[in-house]
Amino acid sequence: MKKFPIVKSRRLRSTPYTDRIESQGVSSYTVYNHMLLPATFKNLEADYQHLKQFVQVWDVAAERQVQITGIDSAKLVQLMTCRDLSKSKIGRCYYAPLIDHEGYLVNDPIINKLADDKWWLSIADSDVIFFAKGIAAGKNFDVEITEPNVNILAVQGPLSDNLMVKLFGEEIRELRFFNFKYFEFKEKKYFVARSGWSKQGGFEIYVEDNIAGQDLYDYLFEYGAEFKVRPGCPNQIERIESALLSYGNDFDNRDNPFEANFDKYVHLDSDVDFLGKEKLKKIKEDGIKRKLMGVKIDHDKIDMYCEKTLWDDKNNIVGYVRSAAYSPTFKKVIGIAMINKPYWDKKDQFKIDINEKIFVGTVCDLPFI
Amino acid sequence: MKKFPIVKSRRLRSTPYTDRIESQGVSSYTVYNHMLLPATFKNLEADYQHLKQFVQVWDVAAERQVQITGIDSAKLVQLMTCRDLSKSKIGRCYYAPLIDHEGYLVNDPIINKLADDKWWLSIADSDVIFFAKGIAAGKNFDVEITEPNVNILAVQGPLSDNLMVKLFGEEIRELRFFNFKYFEFKEKKYFVARSGWSKQGGFEIYVEDNIAGQDLYDYLFEYGAEFKVRPGCPNQIERIESALLSYGNDFDNRDNPFEANFDKYVHLDSDVDFLGKEKLKKIKEDGIKRKLMGVKIDHDKIDMYCEKTLWDDKNNIVGYVRSAAYSPTFKKVIGIAMINKPYWDKKDQFKIDINEKIFVGTVCDLPFI
Repeated sequence: MKKFPIVKSRRLRSTPYTDRIESQGVSSYTVYNHMLLPATFKNLEADYQHLKQFVQVWDVAAERQVQITGIDSAKLVQLMTCRDLSKSKIGRCYYAPLIDHEGYLVNDPIINKLADDKWWLSIADSDVIFFAKGIAAGKNFDVEITEPNVNILAVQGPLSDNLMVKLFGEEIRELRFFNFKYFEFKEKKYFVARSGWSKQGGFEIYVEDNIAGQDLYDYLFEYGAEFKVRPGCPNQIERIESALLSYGNDFDNRDNPFEANFDKYVHLDSDVDFLGKEKLKKIKEDGIKRKLMGVKIDHDKIDMYCEKTLWDDKNNIVGYVRSAAYSPTFKKVIGIAMINKPYWDKKDQFKIDINEKIFVGTVCDLPFI
Repeated sequence: MKKFPIVKSRRLRSTPYTDRIESQGVSSYTVYNHMLLPATFKNLEADYQHLKQFVQVWDVAAERQVQITGIDSAKLVQLMTCRDLSKSKIGRCYYAPLIDHEGYLVNDPIINKLADDKWWLSIADSDVIFFAKGIAAGKNFDVEITEPNVNILAVQGPLSDNLMVKLFGEEIRELRFFNFKYFEFKEKKYFVARSGWSKQGGFEIYVEDNIAGQDLYDYLFEYGAEFKVRPGCPNQIERIESALLSYGNDFDNRDNPFEANFDKYVHLDSDVDFLGKEKLKKIKEDGIKRKLMGVKIDHDKIDMYCEKTLWDDKNNIVGYVRSAAYSPTFKKVIGIAMINKPYWDKKDQFKIDINEKIFVGTVCDLPFI
């Protein structure tokens, strides 16, 4: 596939780490929340192999925060998600699909509860701030909604703990998955969560001060040399193998949470009030006709820039692949696809057109095994 | 400035015309409303010179539509903008800043009134659909809000009328600026507006059928050969010379409409109800402390990827340039800048750092003269 350069501008925001990743050899970008997000360094597969063995530092400032504070903040946050947050605790991270009043998906942030009246929604690629502001205006809520200057550095990979201990001390090993706490390094405090957009283990550091973040970036590389640390980024192969969904790729505002397999986060029996609750009850009652599943395709490469159709032998549509990559682990192309109900249990092969050649594949469950 | 390739995906949507512009030599992209928007073909200056002399066809599918229909649609659209739409007419286009309940800018769409209960907001680069859905949910409005499959082709440049007449007939010359109407070509009807993101004259064709749009694209080039038609795109030089503002570049959700010079669209004395009205009255009463103005800099190039600071002789901050380009017309770098009040009337020179060298410039009114 021919490569096209991206033209930078203030509108496609750089991050506090952009100069550093460019001097370290970032080789391509995507755009995420109106901000540059690195997509590759050496290349997709080399980055993948390194991520699975060692430790990487990621500029994921593009994971922007929507900060909601004020008396009605808990009410507003709850209205936006079908996940029951009534028992949520300070210091915890909650993966939570956001739903509009029609029952469609808006985003799938990590919701960090900093206080009963202070929340950070760490968002995927859509302007959640305007959804929140719209609801707040419509409901006359007493809240303040802003995008704070938070620029996340992720430390990901199996050696993440070793590296983080060298900076923040042994105590950081005790931080549990999807918990966050402030830790100190060289007299600065950093919001650290055990989380991240890979399944290789690691942390996300929600940096609130640009200069401190740049210093931290440099120290992570200095202290990380013994662990073969490298710059990295969310890796398309790893995230698909790990079945980590991507808003805009795998699902969007035309899909409901059941179609995206978010059933365990849809709390219809709870007492809490959220947008689209009645619509979702109806959808659940009627049953869905398609859902996200895995696919494996007998080929060694694929370029994705729109969804690709899957057909059966009679040329009926099986579904649409939305993300895919060659997996060195499965030695096939694997992908995340919206599959029509008649094919959920089928073991039959489907056909797919890749660069004007026909290949075959099969539907499978997520996560891939 | 080093060039970095953009990695395509379903999330950075291609358009129905992407294959065509790539075969015609598009040379760089930006991303706008989660979609690929071409940024250059030959190069910025060659594209600019051609646009000012001839006619170009632009893939501006990234100018997405937010369609609002239903009983409460007019009420919702009015709530979103400080421009009084109470006397708006079907078949007209209205440039209208959208404002949140705090008085900050959300977007600056062209609002097309298709019927009393059917509106298309042709948006700049932010997710207006979620702002509209949030308000509608909060207010319990009876509306339907969708992103229809509309992919705009713009025909821009001084020879636009000549080309459009060959397809749609002499009648199209009668279409007035910021009016729209359906016109027929080869038995298909197309929504055509006299509008576009340049000041070189032209039309925007709101294509509602992908195949018809691709046919139209090809015919525009076939019929346009005699006018030296070329593929093009919104041109950074031309749009700055013409002082056409860009959301995310020149202003954003931290700016109010007075700071962005939208005074004539802020109808505080009207009877209509819109978000942020009281806040805007207060802001107007207090007076603003900074506003968008032009700058001219004695240099022949500039790369913009974030705002650049302007200083005076005593190292006080004059303001920040947000967009800039070398202008072959003014033979200087020209830009759009947020200028602090003490410098609105100053004729003194400011200093700016471009690639670690200091250059001087002056503040001027917009549009540039």
